[in-house]
Formats: sequence, structure tokens, C-alpha cells
Amino acid sequence: MAKNTGNKTLKGHKLLMVMPWKQPAEFLEQLALEFPDLKVAAHVQPEWDQRHPPFPEDEWKDVTLLLTFTILPTPEQAPKLEFVQLMSAGANHVLEQPIFKDTEVKFCTANGVHGPQIAEWIIGTYLAFQHRFPQYQTLQSQHKWDRSSLPLLDDCTSKTVGILGYGAIGRQTARLASALGMRIHAFTLHPRATPESRRDTSWSAAGMGDPAGAFPAAWYSGSSKEDLHSFLSSGLDLLVISTPLTPNTRYLLSGEEFDVLAKVKKEKTIISNIARGPVINTPDLVEALREKKIRGAALDVTDPEPLPAGHELWDMENVIITPHVSGASSRYHERALVILRENMQLIAAGLEEDQGGENSGLVNLVDKEKGY
Amino acid sequence: MAKNTGNKTLKGHKLLMVMPWKQPAEFLEQLALEFPDLKVAAHVQPEWDQRHPPFPEDEWKDVTLLLTFTILPTPEQAPKLEFVQLMSAGANHVLEQPIFKDTEVKFCTANGVHGPQIAEWIIGTYLAFQHRFPQYQTLQSQHKWDRSSLPLLDDCTSKTVGILGYGAIGRQTARLASALGMRIHAFTLHPRATPESRRDTSWSAAGMGDPAGAFPAAWYSGSSKEDLHSFLSSGLDLLVISTPLTPNTRYLLSGEEFDVLAKVKKEKTIISNIARGPVINTPDLVEALREKKIRGAALDVTDPEPLPAGHELWDMENVIITPHVSGASSRYHERALVILRENMQLIAAGLEEDQGGENSGLVNLVDKEKGY
Repeated sequence: MAKNTGNKTLKGHKLLMVMPWKQPAEFLEQLALEFPDLKVAAHVQPEWDQRHPPFPEDEWKDVTLLLTFTILPTPEQAPKLEFVQLMSAGANHVLEQPIFKDTEVKFCTANGVHGPQIAEWIIGTYLAFQHRFPQYQTLQSQHKWDRSSLPLLDDCTSKTVGILGYGAIGRQTARLASALGMRIHAFTLHPRATPESRRDTSWSAAGMGDPAGAFPAAWYSGSSKEDLHSFLSSGLDLLVISTPLTPNTRYLLSGEEFDVLAKVKKEKTIISNIARGPVINTPDLVEALREKKIRGAALDVTDPEPLPAGHELWDMENVIITPHVSGASSRYHERALVILRENMQLIAAGLEEDQGGENSGLVNLVDKEKGY
Repeated sequence: MAKNTGNKTLKGHKLLMVMPWKQPAEFLEQLALEFPDLKVAAHVQPEWDQRHPPFPEDEWKDVTLLLTFTILPTPEQAPKLEFVQLMSAGANHVLEQPIFKDTEVKFCTANGVHGPQIAEWIIGTYLAFQHRFPQYQTLQSQHKWDRSSLPLLDDCTSKTVGILGYGAIGRQTARLASALGMRIHAFTLHPRATPESRRDTSWSAAGMGDPAGAFPAAWYSGSSKEDLHSFLSSGLDLLVISTPLTPNTRYLLSGEEFDVLAKVKKEKTIISNIARGPVINTPDLVEALREKKIRGAALDVTDPEPLPAGHELWDMENVIITPHVSGASSRYHERALVILRENMQLIAAGLEEDQGGENSGLVNLVDKEKGY
């Protein structure tokens, strides 16, 4: 992208939007006001994961800015392209595309769009456990006003939540947990010993998440079993799995780890998995639940997935299962558009390069070497 | 109570604790360290609402400080009594007692002990609605991994919660709602136009509640129907009823009010009632639900109560009912003891009188004229 000192009206630019949602009329009006010289083409794709463009090839040729999920041009089709705003939180599906790997085009993700709804799912299911909402739902279906058959509830104050993977989701979970009066332990792959290293480099909505890394009372890190076990021994009432699935995190939570949790106090920990099913060894989880090594599990992801009818997890006590829906939200695309707009504002101001200090360039910029 | 300039060791004082819980060993140890000259007698009462003391009458005679729920001496039995820490949030059950109305003994309530657990109930049931946890529980019981039969969820960001009665419960609810990215509208009986008037004068745990009245984006107040309707017209996604039941609040939410809510947008508002059942006109609520004037209701209290088997509310869609349990928590007595200790510290420091400014005397002191 050519260095520039600002192009407030985005003259000469064309934004192409390819979305699996209906046209965002209000957003388009805002854009027209904010960048009067910008050309905009907006197309709706019928399927969210389709690769075939829902418009003629000609549409690519003067595009400079692109908003997309999966649909990308070749370098030849879009010679003027400078910037791609992905609507996905990750970039793994574009790493092998020539427009990504063979050009200077800058790619930004929508990392952070899942934070609010998934943190709500995590805290919502935890509150359901603490307040016995599933049991009360059963009593309600039986028309039973029964104040005494369930033990006195434990509220969340002074409980400890361990967050394994302190990204956008973990940080918004920490914000909610903090408001509930909970203590927060964070676990990260790399050590976060300094205030600078604890900052969130990815996007979060204003007033949400934990941009400064201020909520954790204790930070744990490492890649060894010992490191993990030290975190798991820290007295966790709730353990949130919010780490990507990689060869290193496959079956990260297995029999040994459930034993470590049980050693601190049996039936203390609730496991909440919103990452990927195989981060947990499922037969070991079933055994840990059966042996009451842990108190319960809230699972939005399972292994295998879909969880087949007849799988023993379905009927186990203190298990809440939802079918991989925690990340879906009607607000998803609004947040993706906010990120797009922030990035367009940076481009219009000529601030798309990292200037050091306060301005670190585009939001959620993908490092082409690391691939994220 | 005689003015004093401090009595750090509480020499000459005797604290009598009468509790429906087992003896709080750790708390008693702390007291012994903090106030070495204090005498303490702690008794467990078998029933939480019993009036008969579980100890000989003689125990009263040198008591200066009393922690109690319902058991009180006559003025003659406890001539040295100076201070009573009630474990209830209100004082209405003691207003007619001679030791309250005929003496100078200071009474403090445990107002604030319900904030955390009831705010959790409010937000927990709201998250259940937003994330369709009841429907997923039904699918789970049928072993169904079904990602498509329920409509896309709406997360809480940018939703508006109206809090009718901005006390300890309402303020902690506002803290949670704010962390969720919600907008907060507060309704109070008296206007809160100044920062000073928005402060919380009652106790809340450190880091909890809204001591400064900082969370609401809009404040509404008044006692007329017009005032109430103006608040109800402010676009509420969630309406929290957290006002005491008084002759003025009986049937506060009736047909007209549901019509006002529906006028803004049908099926928009969820009603959450953790106050008292009769604040809502129940037949009108049933009609509003049936006519889809509102989106749903979360009810921890009902009218009548207990809700009889066969009542139509039990089976209505988008209704969550729990049997008046939101205020019960295993942490209740811990918080009551924190308030007791804060008040004892003020007495030991000679700061039990309102000095103006930062120090306003005892925490949760009951105004004997107002009765609260």
C-alpha cells in the first residue's frame, strides 16, 4: 500500500462488500457521509461459506478495499486491491490464497466479534449451575413450587475462574466475572510478566473486554504439563477453555488434568468449553464426571461433533450441552462493520502503518509470516 | 449511646450473636484479635424466624452490642444495649418492639446482603432468554444436536435495561448489565438530579454495586402514572422490578403499563420480578404474555404465592419461574458479618455518629422516624 498522508474522503477508493447478510442500509449511509468520494459496491452472498462471487468478474477490477468472509479475487482480477477486512476471527482459510501470500495486500481479521456473545454463554451457563436453573426448569414443568428440595445456592462472589487462553473471549469473560465479584486467574502460552505484555492487541468494543489486562489477580503461562498443572491447582471453581485447537492443545484436558483438579477439592470445578471439542479428552471427561472429580461441564463444543444421539454425555447430571451456537449472534456483522470502519478511518487518516506508541496501525492486522 | 472518642479494644463491651447458622469460627477469631477486650457470646437458633431466645434471660443483662434476625430483649432485660445489627435487609419486623421505639438503641440493617445473588438471578435468567438455554435444555433431553431450529440469538450488547427501584439489588444489576454492554435506565421514587443524590447510602461489598450512581445513562423518577409511563416508554428490552411492595406499588404493573410497553415495540420487553408478586397484576401479565405485548417474564415471586399447581403461568411460553429463592445464598451470613464488623470498627473508633462529609456514621442505620 502506498504511504500517504491522508485521504479524508477516500477519493479514488472503491469498497466492495460481500456479505452473507442483507445490505446494512444505515452503515452505507454513514459511509457516504463520512467518505464522500468513496465508491461502494455491496453484494449479498446466499451461503456464508460460498467461494463463488455473486457478481460479475468485472466488479473486482477497481476494488481497493474489500470486506469478505471467504470470497477472494486472484491478484490479476483485483490489481488495485490494498486492504481486505475479513469477517472471520481467524485467517487460516486464506493463508494459501495467492492474493494473501503473493501480494502486499493487508489482511485484517474480525477477531473480537465473538467476545460478547461467547462470554455471555460462559457466564450464563455458570449462573445456571450456581442458581440451579435447569433443576428449577424441571420443577416448573411439573408445576412444583418447591423451596426446600434443592440445597442452598452458592453465589459467585469470591469464586475463582481460571481462563485458559486470554484472548478476546477470555477477556470479556473476565470483565463479567469481575463484576460478579469473582477472582480471575489467566493462563497464556507465553509469559505476561509486564503490563505491556498483558495488553490486548486485538479489537474489542469500547468499554468491553480487558484491553489493559487489568482483571486477572494471577497470571500463569507455559507449554509444559507442569505449567498447566500449576494453573489447574490454583483453586478453580470455573475453568474456561478458550484456547485454539492446535497439535499442542489436542486432549490438553485429559485424565491427569482432571485428577489435578480433583486433588485441590473434589467436585469443585465446573469446566466450560467454548473452544473446540478435542481440546478435552471426552472419555476422560465422562469418567471425571462419573467419579465426581469435577462438579460439572458446560459444553458448546464436543468430540465428536455433532454429538450423536445415545452418547452418554447427553444425560449426565450437571452437564449443559448446546450445539456449537455460542458464537452466533445477530450482532456479529454489526461488530465486523465497526472494525471495517475503524480500519477505513485509519486508512483515510494515513495511519495504516504501525507508528509505534499509541498508534499501532490497522486493527487486527494479520502477520503474514505467522499467519495470524 | 454516649459520645466517645474511641475504644479500640472495645473494653467493657459484650457482643451477643444470635444466628440461624453454625458458629462462624473464623469470624470469632478475627474479632478476638481485633478487639481483645470484647466479650462475645454466640448462640445458634434452630429456626431462622423464631422469637424465643435459645439462651437464659441472664445472658442479656450486660450486652452492649447485638447481632440478631428476630430475637430481641425488652429494654429492662438489656439495660446496657447500645447497638443492634439486624441480619435482615429491612427493619419492618422490629418497628413495634419497645427496644426499638422506646429507647435510643441504634439499629442497623443488613441492607445490601441480597444484592449479589439477586442480581445474578436477574442477569442469569435474562441470559437464559437471550441464549435460549431452556429450549436447548429440552433439545438436550431429547439427545438432539440441532443448530438450525432456533432463531439466531441476540446478545446483550446495546440492549437497554430499565431498573424500577435503584437500591442495592438494582445497583449490582446495573454493574453486571454495564459489563455486558447494556444501557441502563434507572427509575426512583424521588428525583436524583444531582451526583450527591445518586449516591448509594446503604452498604455494598467492595467493588460491587454502584456506590456513586455512575451506571445509569438516564434517570427517571416520580410517583404518578405519567412518570412511570415515561420510563416504560424509554425502549426497555429488560424491565427489572426491584421496588418494595407498598400501597403505592401494589399492581404497579397492570394492563395499561403492558400496553405502554407494547406501544414502543410489541414483544420487546422481558419483565423480571424479584420484588414481590403483587407489584404485578397477574391476570394482566398473563394476558400481556398471551397477546405477546411483552416478550417474556422471569418470576421469582408470584401472586398468589406459592403459585398453585394448574396456574396458567407455569406452562406459558417464555416464562421462567423459581420459587422465591433468588435471595437465599450461602454467602448471606458472611456479608451480614462484614456489615457487623464495619459497624463495630466505627464504634471502636468513636465514629458512630454522622460527622458529615466522608464519615456518615454507622452503616445502614435505621431512621427511627421513617422506619427504614
